[in-house]
Amino acid sequence: MRMKPDCIPCFLRQVVNALRLSSIDDSEIERAQREVMTYLLSSEWDLSPPEIDYVVQRIIRSYAGGDPYREVKRRSNDEALSIYGECKRIVESSEDPLRTAVKLAIAGNVIDFGPYTSYDLKGTIDRVLKSDLSIDHYPLLKEKFQKASRILYFSDNAGEIVLDKLLVETMLSLREVKITFVVKGGPMINDATLEDFHYVLSDVGGVEVRTVSNGEEGTGPDRRSGEVLRWIREHDLVISKGQGNYEILGDFNGIFHMLLVKCPVVAADLNASVGDIVLIYR
Amino acid sequence: MRMKPDCIPCFLRQVVNALRLSSIDDSEIERAQREVMTYLLSSEWDLSPPEIDYVVQRIIRSYAGGDPYREVKRRSNDEALSIYGECKRIVESSEDPLRTAVKLAIAGNVIDFGPYTSYDLKGTIDRVLKSDLSIDHYPLLKEKFQKASRILYFSDNAGEIVLDKLLVETMLSLREVKITFVVKGGPMINDATLEDFHYVLSDVGGVEVRTVSNGEEGTGPDRRSGEVLRWIREHDLVISKGQGNYEILGDFNGIFHMLLVKCPVVAADLNASVGDIVLIYR
Repeated sequence: MRMKPDCIPCFLRQVVNALRLSSIDDSEIERAQREVMTYLLSSEWDLSPPEIDYVVQRIIRSYAGGDPYREVKRRSNDEALSIYGECKRIVESSEDPLRTAVKLAIAGNVIDFGPYTSYDLKGTIDRVLKSDLSIDHYPLLKEKFQKASRILYFSDNAGEIVLDKLLVETMLSLREVKITFVVKGGPMINDATLEDFHYVLSDVGGVEVRTVSNGEEGTGPDRRSGEVLRWIREHDLVISKGQGNYEILGDFNGIFHMLLVKCPVVAADLNASVGDIVLIYR
Repeated sequence: MRMKPDCIPCFLRQVVNALRLSSIDDSEIERAQREVMTYLLSSEWDLSPPEIDYVVQRIIRSYAGGDPYREVKRRSNDEALSIYGECKRIVESSEDPLRTAVKLAIAGNVIDFGPYTSYDLKGTIDRVLKSDLSIDHYPLLKEKFQKASRILYFSDNAGEIVLDKLLVETMLSLREVKITFVVKGGPMINDATLEDFHYVLSDVGGVEVRTVSNGEEGTGPDRRSGEVLRWIREHDLVISKGQGNYEILGDFNGIFHMLLVKCPVVAADLNASVGDIVLIYR
């Protein structure tokens, strides 16, 4: 998916939001914004939003003196872990535990500091559990899951990863499958990294972890690379969480995308509306 | 009031919103955004937001081939005119007609295509009538009004101008006053212009109209000019509607500012919150 003019103000808003987290003063934020605009003017805009955002976030980190979302990610994990037990009971007592776990994992996608500055996790869980999916390819997911032995799972945000853990555990409890769980190999907004994986999923057996690039060298292969395409082809069932992954992996076929629609650009691409709950096979 | 880094994404969002109104295609919007960013990079940021916005809106109009808000303004006027009778009855039957008209005029400030892409006029009127003002200098306004013979009224948006008309008429019905009503001398977002004044207030006697600059030559004196300061000093009571006027006229003292707080930058300057209803004397 290619970026739209709507993405430009969004990148510049992220500069303010991220640097305010680090209590950077306004004159430094102005310098960061000028650097981001200089980059935007020098680049072509026919890329996917995350590809532009790699550079924007790198500039943000250089002004923040590190990862400005570190504390936010830890808090998001802890908040989600505090309701994990309750969510697990909802899944286990439901008629179709896989479907319920899928819906909860999509609800977890509300934890996202790219488009948002705050979120309502409990409210979103209630809403998602009560609602139908706007695009619902669950029957096909279930069918493919029944035959799958190798599952590839692209995670999105910290905090959300707790609900991904619940879906992973639900899948492991239903069939003998091997799950490859993908996180970012370095900081990128509040995306889950290896640190979050170990903090949240360390007690889950039978899960291999891999990293994809955050746009910096040595953090893993780019999601658009031949190597990642090979991973996708080597697995029987591929799950991709969230807008950022959709914006890049949506160009490959054979993937189940699970996300809350948070911005008009993604909404238009999916022929959906902002706020929709989507499970789409492409 | 000086701009903040938060204003930068807001300017660039206005480029997208305004040009989408004119059905300009994305490649042209990209060109306009690049021109706006080039201007932002070349300018100092220690100005008030409207001073930067003069240039941004001029660039927008050059891509739109005219005023992209023309149709929106006409629709806003018509929508507000359709509830004018009802609002007039509310004022006339209220215990303190001046106070009720002031509150309705502030509610009208919700009609604003700078921060918003849509608004809920009726819902806002209900909310404002039921709520207290977050900052309420009405007693001082009433006191000054009782002695005033010359009133200067800086209007803000088209549509909103219908509720300003109601306040103007209420003041004229209560005392023998001379009212000078100020609009923009040329297009600037959805701000009221002479066209809107004549469309909405043509049947009100005893009102003189003046224009202030929209940032282009020949549209009237700049709101920060000595000439406008002289207008302010020559009147006994000065009312200023909306955020844009507050951002510029807030530097002068002796003015009643009436506004809905719509963005965190103005909220911080007023020590208020986004969504607050404010009548402040400064």
